[in-house]
Amino acid sequence: MHAEIIGIGTEILLGQIVDTNSAYLARGLADLGIEVYYHTIVGDNANRLTQALDLAATRSDLIVMSGGLGPTADDLTKQTVAKFLHTDLIADPLTMTKLDQYYQQSQIEPLPNNQQMAMYLDHSTKLLNDVGYAVGSFYQQTDGPDVLVLPGPPKEMSWMFDHYAIPALKAAYHRDEFLISRVLRFTEIGESELVTKIDDLIANQTNPTVAPYIKPNEVTLRLTAKAANEVIANQLLDALESQIQQRVGAYFYGYGDDNSLPNEVVQKLIKRDISITAAESLTAGLFQSTLATIPGVSAIFPGGFVTYANEAKEQLLAIPTNVIETNGVVSEATAIWMAEQARKQMNTDIAVSFTGAAGPDPLEGQPAGTVWIGLAVKDQPTIAQLFHLPGNRNTVRERSVLRAFNLIRQHIL
Amino acid sequence: MHAEIIGIGTEILLGQIVDTNSAYLARGLADLGIEVYYHTIVGDNANRLTQALDLAATRSDLIVMSGGLGPTADDLTKQTVAKFLHTDLIADPLTMTKLDQYYQQSQIEPLPNNQQMAMYLDHSTKLLNDVGYAVGSFYQQTDGPDVLVLPGPPKEMSWMFDHYAIPALKAAYHRDEFLISRVLRFTEIGESELVTKIDDLIANQTNPTVAPYIKPNEVTLRLTAKAANEVIANQLLDALESQIQQRVGAYFYGYGDDNSLPNEVVQKLIKRDISITAAESLTAGLFQSTLATIPGVSAIFPGGFVTYANEAKEQLLAIPTNVIETNGVVSEATAIWMAEQARKQMNTDIAVSFTGAAGPDPLEGQPAGTVWIGLAVKDQPTIAQLFHLPGNRNTVRERSVLRAFNLIRQHIL
Repeated sequence: MHAEIIGIGTEILLGQIVDTNSAYLARGLADLGIEVYYHTIVGDNANRLTQALDLAATRSDLIVMSGGLGPTADDLTKQTVAKFLHTDLIADPLTMTKLDQYYQQSQIEPLPNNQQMAMYLDHSTKLLNDVGYAVGSFYQQTDGPDVLVLPGPPKEMSWMFDHYAIPALKAAYHRDEFLISRVLRFTEIGESELVTKIDDLIANQTNPTVAPYIKPNEVTLRLTAKAANEVIANQLLDALESQIQQRVGAYFYGYGDDNSLPNEVVQKLIKRDISITAAESLTAGLFQSTLATIPGVSAIFPGGFVTYANEAKEQLLAIPTNVIETNGVVSEATAIWMAEQARKQMNTDIAVSFTGAAGPDPLEGQPAGTVWIGLAVKDQPTIAQLFHLPGNRNTVRERSVLRAFNLIRQHIL
Repeated sequence: MHAEIIGIGTEILLGQIVDTNSAYLARGLADLGIEVYYHTIVGDNANRLTQALDLAATRSDLIVMSGGLGPTADDLTKQTVAKFLHTDLIADPLTMTKLDQYYQQSQIEPLPNNQQMAMYLDHSTKLLNDVGYAVGSFYQQTDGPDVLVLPGPPKEMSWMFDHYAIPALKAAYHRDEFLISRVLRFTEIGESELVTKIDDLIANQTNPTVAPYIKPNEVTLRLTAKAANEVIANQLLDALESQIQQRVGAYFYGYGDDNSLPNEVVQKLIKRDISITAAESLTAGLFQSTLATIPGVSAIFPGGFVTYANEAKEQLLAIPTNVIETNGVVSEATAIWMAEQARKQMNTDIAVSFTGAAGPDPLEGQPAGTVWIGLAVKDQPTIAQLFHLPGNRNTVRERSVLRAFNLIRQHIL
């Protein structure tokens, strides 16, 4: 079953509003197992909307429309669809009453077009609007695509879709299969490298499907299985996941759509009551600020140091002057001293340190992207690791922070 | 001249990413006087992209595409467009060198498909990518629509469009009217409040036009004037700007598309050689990290303190225990002590401090969003200001940082 989404609105066409409805609808339809092949945006223009409908009828089983159901003269969607389907518009009496009450209460003179909002397609399933006035429709055909008509304002559209359209679609298409998704999250591996390592799994996918997504500084894989029940769907996911983990498990750090490497690490530190501090040079507080994005971190994070200049490293962390003089500021020795001194001063279980060249210019002859990250752990030898990070100044700083979280994950958790 | 926009990407089609590129492009094309009639989204699928191109060729003079220029096997845009146009792809040597350097710097093994990013359409105007790798194209035809090919990541797309595509489009279509835009940036005022104050200017706009845009935590106004030459266009802009400044000048902080309040403030601090430090509680390094996003800040920023726990405030800033005990941690007195002690310890010209309840929970009975920001200035009395900031934990933290930059702007600059 193939669907396409048509958004109607001149503001969207001109770029005055970003279209968020199509993404919302695409996700909702995917959850019902309905594949979406196209999104189209047209203005409030009957001719071009009719052209889009004619085209959609040649290639889709379901047309999902949003926008243009309002009371103004530009709102032409219902009339245009009725003509396209050779059907009439009829008024919903409940909505007519709601509109009357609204005008009585607000003492505004009703506009002549207002009752247009109460109209829906004859012979369709009427979709009520609990958070606005414009009524929607779900119209089924035997000799052409089914048509779903939804309002444009995102709150009204999503409410009507979730509460009325989804039940109507489920009833119409008898979907009692289970569709379950699982998101795997990876760090320190690029999309192309990850995809290359599992390219046969992607090429041969049928059920479950595998889809890679690039997020800022990480890659996720979304596995989706379709089955008669939840247990079988999960078994299918388990089997595919174990193949993936065998190949790229070294880069895997966690599950879920709303997760991140910092979140995963901080949650584990909190759970295991491991306290942490940091001494930051090039990152200048970005690591500690990232810790603080996660509620509850105060249980394990007292604070720390931003030591941007060499003098600040010596003054705040009591690092002997000759350490930086002898080894350079971008060095293993400096990173180790920074981490150790920070841990001692804050009396925490662990401490991380950052020293490097964020760019755009080299620092002490070290090219931009050269970063040492130190990790001090109570009663253990302090280590420091060298990274060569690509990207501009702020990308290097952001990547340094993620590398530190990954170092903690690998060495502590 | 009619254009249509085609976005390519399975993530957009499935709704995992909201398409912001089409809106950006539609606004940019409108500024050039090019009317857009359709936006279409297709997945990374050569057949359906070809169908979309065939259809566009029947109804548009210009096809503007974004997405699918990356290095993975799904990225099919260039190959598909080349076939559609019956032309070849050729490699840009500069980008090949950039890719080689990237792999050397990051010490990653290059992938076989990577050079795909350096390819562009033969016989086209090559559009370079200064903020990424994938090269774009502007291909002109005499017997069919012109085609503009841009990358998908919004940062790369907008950079390439603004810096390379717009000049190419202007040259191609001999638009010798001068179209000049000026962007005014405002802070601490909401879009609806700003729009209400200038609603007559927006309603009566013809030349120059005025378009408000909401950005994270700020609002910008884009004024665009059309005239026979640059001098007249600038005069039109000056006249409109002065009307706007009379009404909302109190919230204005700077000009330009690539500007921000932190950038504006840091540039002025550097210019005037005013050194700065900070002591951060709820923001936990976010203010200092924001300072460090701007190259050259090392001249005025030695480092500072992240004092998340009360003990850290007392230990690192030498604040007497009874200050926090008596006044509470979220208090004017604590903010003033933090700023003063930070300034003294780092011996800078100014220091800011942050103490407050980021949420989700209240802190010492103060509701989430209650934030005191202190500002210590050498040889002047230290002040602290109370803010009640809306939003969730991280929005409160981000807004606190911007309020501090605005305090510096108002009191120092």
